[in-house]
Amino acid sequence: MKSAIFQKAGLMTVEEVAKPTLQAPDDVIIKVVRACVCGSDLWAYAHGDNKEEHSMNDGHEALGIVDAVGDGITTVQPGDFVIVPFTHGCGECDACRAGFDGTCDRHPGFTNWSHGFQSEYIRFHYANWALVKVPGQPSDYSEGMIKSLLTLADVMPTGYHAARCAGVKRGDKVVVIGDGAVGQCAVIAAKMLGASQIVLMSRHEDRQQMALASGATAVVAERGEEGIAKVREILGGGADAALECVGTEAAVDQALGVLHNGGRLGFVGVPHYNNHPLGSTFAQNISVAGGSASVTTYDKQVLLKAVLDGDINPGRVFTADYKLEEINQAYQDMQERKTIKSMLIVSD
Amino acid sequence: MKSAIFQKAGLMTVEEVAKPTLQAPDDVIIKVVRACVCGSDLWAYAHGDNKEEHSMNDGHEALGIVDAVGDGITTVQPGDFVIVPFTHGCGECDACRAGFDGTCDRHPGFTNWSHGFQSEYIRFHYANWALVKVPGQPSDYSEGMIKSLLTLADVMPTGYHAARCAGVKRGDKVVVIGDGAVGQCAVIAAKMLGASQIVLMSRHEDRQQMALASGATAVVAERGEEGIAKVREILGGGADAALECVGTEAAVDQALGVLHNGGRLGFVGVPHYNNHPLGSTFAQNISVAGGSASVTTYDKQVLLKAVLDGDINPGRVFTADYKLEEINQAYQDMQERKTIKSMLIVSD
Repeated sequence: MKSAIFQKAGLMTVEEVAKPTLQAPDDVIIKVVRACVCGSDLWAYAHGDNKEEHSMNDGHEALGIVDAVGDGITTVQPGDFVIVPFTHGCGECDACRAGFDGTCDRHPGFTNWSHGFQSEYIRFHYANWALVKVPGQPSDYSEGMIKSLLTLADVMPTGYHAARCAGVKRGDKVVVIGDGAVGQCAVIAAKMLGASQIVLMSRHEDRQQMALASGATAVVAERGEEGIAKVREILGGGADAALECVGTEAAVDQALGVLHNGGRLGFVGVPHYNNHPLGSTFAQNISVAGGSASVTTYDKQVLLKAVLDGDINPGRVFTADYKLEEINQAYQDMQERKTIKSMLIVSD
Repeated sequence: MKSAIFQKAGLMTVEEVAKPTLQAPDDVIIKVVRACVCGSDLWAYAHGDNKEEHSMNDGHEALGIVDAVGDGITTVQPGDFVIVPFTHGCGECDACRAGFDGTCDRHPGFTNWSHGFQSEYIRFHYANWALVKVPGQPSDYSEGMIKSLLTLADVMPTGYHAARCAGVKRGDKVVVIGDGAVGQCAVIAAKMLGASQIVLMSRHEDRQQMALASGATAVVAERGEEGIAKVREILGGGADAALECVGTEAAVDQALGVLHNGGRLGFVGVPHYNNHPLGSTFAQNISVAGGSASVTTYDKQVLLKAVLDGDINPGRVFTADYKLEEINQAYQDMQERKTIKSMLIVSD
């Protein structure tokens, strides 16, 4: 089968590799229908980021058809149409029962994460609870709906996680830091949870317009102190919640800066900084929460229904699509901000 | 009038000083009935902690009778019996309306804090919303009830803040780090909010017994990895919430260590460490919240009624009382753990 290979920073290729096989009772083999490129994949593509050369791709979002199941699988069967999350919650531990399957207690760290999804077939481990079944078959859905379903593998639940971690509730004034796919989904999530004002910090016209179409009430292009002042002017004071969807220290500082004392920070940008002082949040009574999103929990609880009912349209973040063979272009266009998020059409 | 003076580390005295006078329209002069020593006062007493020698005492908890009010005061009048909080919320800003008057947006940092309460009279600034009126007069209450009312100036709301910041709810498994007055109050708060299991980490028999009488279901004397393992054994897994009531990095690490992924840390120990890495909380999806307690909000909302109804008895943390002239003994006994918290009987 074909699979995307990370050759080195700036170069993705497609190679013929062995089709994956079942290796454990709770493995599922999936024929990929759609995959995509994540903002987090770009860290290695742009900077190397210590990723081994000529290694498996970092892709971890897909829609697919179940091809084969291990002996322990009771929830899906060959032919089922599924959302393939980037996480592998067990559904039974303290963390999963508390709604945090993105950091399952039984599958710590890297064992809870997916990779290699930019391929024709994938092996999904710890599959019994984590996969999310979609009614019918891909051909039953419009391409727009397929795009929205694909966001349920990562970016939509991740944006929703930011909003849930920040405890967004009806009437809240919310600021979103980051205008990529996750930031766009955080805007959608804040609106779902009833925010009365949603300000997106963004300097790009196309991303500003997309957020405004999804429910943002204002956009702010300025950054740093100037940006904070602009946000406070628009909100008539500090924000109740800030959703940090980037992963840099500057973004965290921006988020902390727009909050009133007692405000709430939800952060889902994978931290690309070492430490951030807790002391400053104590002085402001700011709550801080974040981590890997609860993909399976949120999809089953609320997001799949919201997509199928047409209440939300997160699929709009896919502004360009590519064949698997065009993988390098898919990365490069996203890296150069020519597309917000690149979709890969792997099979029909 | 008499007032306690910090002479130097290890030495508190009482001196004759000028009685305070009204200086602003929202000032209130209060005749102190009871004051006390806070664990945070001991940082300077034990270590100097950069506090100026021969300076005003750090006391910031009192019960008293209103003596005089500024022109802008509409909520209390001379003769009223009041709880005198360590904070000065305005009651109207974003932070106060969100329930975080401990970090009022209008009275930032030190302007929101009290000091000098170990005195016969005190000037309480920004007084109109922050003072908490108690029905009747001190003579209407038993000494036990007076003690519980005195805790409402700081330690009981602070313990309650830890529990609220950690989102303690019915059925939660809760661990309290710190067996001083705030830790003891955190146990009471966890029980009020419906925790099903409450484990206090403590090595002192008297403090263990006090917590068990207040609702703790187990105590653990071990610390570090051993203590974490013991807690997890008792709870049959990780805790839902950890309440950090000390303020050292070791205590924060202990708190983070007992939580399951997706658990919640409430921290109210004034941080005596520089940075604590946010990265580790991201990897575990742990939420972190804390700061100065919402004394006025919690007292008015729930705590004053709970004390007056006899539902809670936080006054038991005062295990010794002293005359104002015995101020050094009050500090020293608390420093040497001969008493959990020292009460000062200033007037009848």
